Amino acid sequence: MKEVIAVVRMNMMNRTKSALSDAGIPSVTARECLGRGKGIVDMQLLEGAEKGYEEAISQLGQSSRMIPKRAMLMVLPDKLVDKAVKTIIGVNQTGKSGDGMIFVMPCADAVLVRTGESGDAVLDDV
Amino acid sequence: MKEVIAVVRMNMMNRTKSALSDAGIPSVTARECLGRGKGIVDMQLLEGAEKGYEEAISQLGQSSRMIPKRAMLMVLPDKLVDKAVKTIIGVNQTGKSGDGMIFVMPCADAVLVRTGESGDAVLDDV
Amino acid sequence: MKEVIAVVRMNMMNRTKSALSDAGIPSVTARECLGRGKGIVDMQLLEGAEKGYEEAISQLGQSSRMIPKRAMLMVLPDKLVDKAVKTIIGVNQTGKSGDGMIFVMPCADAVLVRTGESGDAVLDDV
Repeated sequence: MKEVIAVVRMNMMNRTKSALSDAGIPSVTARECLGRGKGIVDMQLLEGAEKGYEEAISQLGQSSRMIPKRAMLMVLPDKLVDKAVKTIIGVNQTGKSGDGMIFVMPCADAVLVRTGESGDAVLDDV
Repeated sequence: MKEVIAVVRMNMMNRTKSALSDAGIPSVTARECLGRGKGIVDMQLLEGAEKGYEEAISQLGQSSRMIPKRAMLMVLPDKLVDKAVKTIIGVNQTGKSGDGMIFVMPCADAVLVRTGESGDAVLDDV
Repeated sequence: MKEVIAVVRMNMMNRTKSALSDAGIPSVTARECLGRGKGIVDMQLLEGAEKGYEEAISQLGQSSRMIPKRAMLMVLPDKLVDKAVKTIIGVNQTGKSGDGMIFVMPCADAVLVRTGESGDAVLDDV
């Protein structure tokens, strides 16, 4: 079991997720808990922007310049790691600086809280 | 030493932290640097909101519905990992979809900056 | 290859990054996808508060109390890990509570999307 962390251009997130999904790779944690970067403050800014506070809206503009990448996290059975890496490269490689990085981290176990089950089996079932 | 990452419903954070604390588990990093969470939608909505699109601004309110999970991170001695996992399941298991996931990642070492000490001993002392 | 996660005081981020850079350590991912929790936006809030924006001040009240630390993430060749840890301690150690923690996590591989290359070599080249 591995955690694959793809740091890609922000505007490539959706395309990358689609490609992974087409390849049969559930980019589970990307949907649920991605986001090294940004954070709780977002909601506060979002709420501020929603209410029309100029201050919040103007900060939103800056944050996109400062954090141009987005991390997608997915925990996968070992056998899917290579496929995931190739799929991510296929979508994101332009040959120019800034295409991003992929990190592969060991993951000892995953537990599905709903059933208490663990192991590779739960990775399909989130 | 392991990093335990619990992805739970947002409104279960505090209850989970209390239960962990009652079980003698210091959910240290959860307090300090939590927040894999939020997500993809943010930047697009943010940009839309920045440009003043009413649609984007109104959707900001919804993003909390789209990413309802929060990650708690804690680095624990090996002997506390099972207890932590059971405690998190005990608090969060409703048997319904969306109860969350727990990931257990290897952690090679932890260092307390204040003293320079490392190893399991510093995990109580953050 | 290891991931080094430094959880430090917010106002020590830049000084820590400079020291790492001076020591020849590319704190790559810190720039790109830092921020388990909170994030760069914090500084903007701080600046906003300094300038007296009510909106920023009210948000700080909630967030700065809750998450006063910043995480820097860097993926390094094994041979640079000790140097990174020592550098981070050197900059952040005041001997007082709150100096922070450093976590060292195993990292199985890193892939540079631009070229498809992987291994230690790509860690210089992000």
